[in-house]
Amino acid sequence: MSAAPLFGVILAGGTGTRFWPLSRSHYPKQVLRLLGSGSMLQSTIERLKPLIPLNHLIVVTSASQEEVIRLELYRQDLTGVQLLLEPQGRNTAAAVGLAAVKGAGLGEDAVLAVFPADHYIRHPENLYPALEEGLRWARKGYLVTFGIRPTRPETGYGYIQAGAALEPGGWALHCSRFVEKPPQESARAMLAAGGFYWNSGMFMFRRDVLLASFAQYLPELYQGLMQLREGAQAQEVYPGLPSISLDHGLLERAQKVAVVPVEMGWSDVGTWGALPDLFPRDEGGNVILGRSLDLDSRDCVIYAQDRLVATLGLKDLIVVDTPDATLVCHRERVQEVRDLVAALSQRYPLESSRHLTVERPWGAYTVMESGPGYKVKHIVVEPGRRLSLQLHRHRAEHWVVVQGAALVTIGGEVRRLASNESIYVPPSTPHRLENPGPEAVRLIEIQTGPILEEEDIVRLSDDFWRGPEGPPPEDGSS
Amino acid sequence: MSAAPLFGVILAGGTGTRFWPLSRSHYPKQVLRLLGSGSMLQSTIERLKPLIPLNHLIVVTSASQEEVIRLELYRQDLTGVQLLLEPQGRNTAAAVGLAAVKGAGLGEDAVLAVFPADHYIRHPENLYPALEEGLRWARKGYLVTFGIRPTRPETGYGYIQAGAALEPGGWALHCSRFVEKPPQESARAMLAAGGFYWNSGMFMFRRDVLLASFAQYLPELYQGLMQLREGAQAQEVYPGLPSISLDHGLLERAQKVAVVPVEMGWSDVGTWGALPDLFPRDEGGNVILGRSLDLDSRDCVIYAQDRLVATLGLKDLIVVDTPDATLVCHRERVQEVRDLVAALSQRYPLESSRHLTVERPWGAYTVMESGPGYKVKHIVVEPGRRLSLQLHRHRAEHWVVVQGAALVTIGGEVRRLASNESIYVPPSTPHRLENPGPEAVRLIEIQTGPILEEEDIVRLSDDFWRGPEGPPPEDGSS
Repeated sequence: MSAAPLFGVILAGGTGTRFWPLSRSHYPKQVLRLLGSGSMLQSTIERLKPLIPLNHLIVVTSASQEEVIRLELYRQDLTGVQLLLEPQGRNTAAAVGLAAVKGAGLGEDAVLAVFPADHYIRHPENLYPALEEGLRWARKGYLVTFGIRPTRPETGYGYIQAGAALEPGGWALHCSRFVEKPPQESARAMLAAGGFYWNSGMFMFRRDVLLASFAQYLPELYQGLMQLREGAQAQEVYPGLPSISLDHGLLERAQKVAVVPVEMGWSDVGTWGALPDLFPRDEGGNVILGRSLDLDSRDCVIYAQDRLVATLGLKDLIVVDTPDATLVCHRERVQEVRDLVAALSQRYPLESSRHLTVERPWGAYTVMESGPGYKVKHIVVEPGRRLSLQLHRHRAEHWVVVQGAALVTIGGEVRRLASNESIYVPPSTPHRLENPGPEAVRLIEIQTGPILEEEDIVRLSDDFWRGPEGPPPEDGSS
Repeated sequence: MSAAPLFGVILAGGTGTRFWPLSRSHYPKQVLRLLGSGSMLQSTIERLKPLIPLNHLIVVTSASQEEVIRLELYRQDLTGVQLLLEPQGRNTAAAVGLAAVKGAGLGEDAVLAVFPADHYIRHPENLYPALEEGLRWARKGYLVTFGIRPTRPETGYGYIQAGAALEPGGWALHCSRFVEKPPQESARAMLAAGGFYWNSGMFMFRRDVLLASFAQYLPELYQGLMQLREGAQAQEVYPGLPSISLDHGLLERAQKVAVVPVEMGWSDVGTWGALPDLFPRDEGGNVILGRSLDLDSRDCVIYAQDRLVATLGLKDLIVVDTPDATLVCHRERVQEVRDLVAALSQRYPLESSRHLTVERPWGAYTVMESGPGYKVKHIVVEPGRRLSLQLHRHRAEHWVVVQGAALVTIGGEVRRLASNESIYVPPSTPHRLENPGPEAVRLIEIQTGPILEEEDIVRLSDDFWRGPEGPPPEDGSS
């Protein structure tokens, strides 16, 4: 692609409440490995890599999601992307605006292509030519949307009504109007009438066109973005920004809007109800995954992991099992999982916010049990990685290696600790755990002490971004 | 009570598949603490204690349930009862017959009162006068049944049709016929007609009357019982015994049968579907127990423990959660949980047979995690108890005490191990764990080695019945 370069803006600020208990507030949908080996964020980035260099990809997320997003980028070796943090969520218009004014290397007429971080595209090979077509029109000053031909009267998506082709016999069409998530009857009528497309949430426009449109249709947002551009702190500007989507705030009002229809096996994977479209179903119409056994259920989604889930005679249910929490929900009520999680966050804050297994740049730990005065963890250190040099003020730790061989530093002494060996780490003693070998090290850690919070950690030195010097600056250079 | 003494026969041979996953094949319904602090077996025995001395109570179970029943009697300080083991289940006629010929201290005209070990009686104070009334007629040579006035057209119970009173204005009635578990319509008709009672499965008769009736109506069984009485091995006799219930085999055929109606808040607690009759319901008609949160479900049973179960918009479902397995089942299909467990026993034998937490005479252990070459357990030793002096051929053990203080013997040396202290037990080394203190000792055990089976244990000495000398003889003197 010649002319002004193409940048990608990846919207990764979702809090993922609708995929609870697989998603948690500190483990949102965009990092879920729901549909294969990669996370949804990772898949989104990998999909764009053939088209856009990593340092032209701008991931926008909220400060509360920084840790998990930064970790995901690190673990997938994608730290070359730009990362922008919003102090709070202000919907998509502000997020895209932030990328437009704070993205590094953006020329005035750069083209921005916007992608949600958590959608599924079965046939990305069909995406690329559509993006090329969109790029042509974006360069000509259009605000370009991408429309999906509806296959059912879906009430969970917005629709775009298309008009005539932008050029005779051409691919891209005039966009005549946007329709918000419709009632069932309207959805049926649009499906029957034709000429309507699902709004994919993907957009493309020139940066100068976007900012000029903001100035015209969202002047408050525009003012705020200009302040940010001139160096104002996001914490100060953000509370005053309007919270509105790019669709409602801009595209529904603007004149020069195009839609490029594209068939690519798209799903926004909005709720557990989307799974039957994405996975093979058994003869009863069920999607059944994991350690499970069913007798005679129909049209259910049963998502198990390592625990056993046995089901009998169910109809239209969603059953999702995780190590510490299980959801059982009627299929027609999946939209309300969000309300359920809101209620959970009051009564069961732990299960609504975190998993028992927590990923770290060096590996992961799993809380196996917590009791009065003790906590038991399973710790995995990936080959060649090491934890920070750290100490705890209030707790002692007993380590028993059960796989691999670790290098252990305790109070200045270094020792090799092989499988079936153990060691004691007294409180207030600097210590470090390292895996110098080629296979993962697994150990059982038993913490004892009056205070067993994760926050009782003093990092004296760290291989990652968590040491005394803190994370890299938020200017996108991470 | 004067005259020949009263003995209780407690039928505790159930395999409890219908309460999976709370019951397992090695943890049957009769030891479940489903309805309060005591197990169903314990409650059955405690209920009879005011009437019948412990050594006149004969618990009959199958050899495969010996361990769990013996343990339950020990833990509840009820080892004074007689325990009789059947080599295999042969239904209730054989079980009662075994008690009649092998029970210790039975005179020829002793009266036997038969009770299932796993029924619920809300008002035992109403049971006692009914038993007194039954005893009067049993002494006169009647086979006495106890009938429950039906409160709904239940299709899961057998019915007894009563005739005239045995004496003018008396309580006990002639029994005119038995009706097997009826279809819905017949159940409705019986409820409307009156004079029908649910068959409680409780019976009372003189021993000589029982044996004479067996001789008349179940001659094969009678022959087998006589062989047993003369000292034949149960293993040899049992395979030839007819497998038939006392109701079908005897009471339906016999002439002199009485029924004593009794209202005592009885339930056979036959399936998960019985819980709504036994627990308070919320405004949606749900029984919700444990760590759970529900939005807008109706007429469900939700049985959670420590894990979180969140439910949304359900109707007529049973959800039962345990640490390693979850059941979700339509309420009208609860009878088929038995079939589900049959299928599970093939594919998931562990979850169909045992819990992660296993009770022991000295306390309990919980398998927290199993991996290649290691296993992690949480061990609780009750105050004043100690494990056997034992060794393992193939595994080493790391112990970290997290509560209380243990006395540890390893290879002849004795050491006190307080909270936050650890010790290593090498393979093939005799060791013993003891709790000399007044509070429970809790420790985390990490096993390592190529073979980590429970069977890798050599007990050199044991405080209970598991040492080299083995369990007590099966003559009921345990």
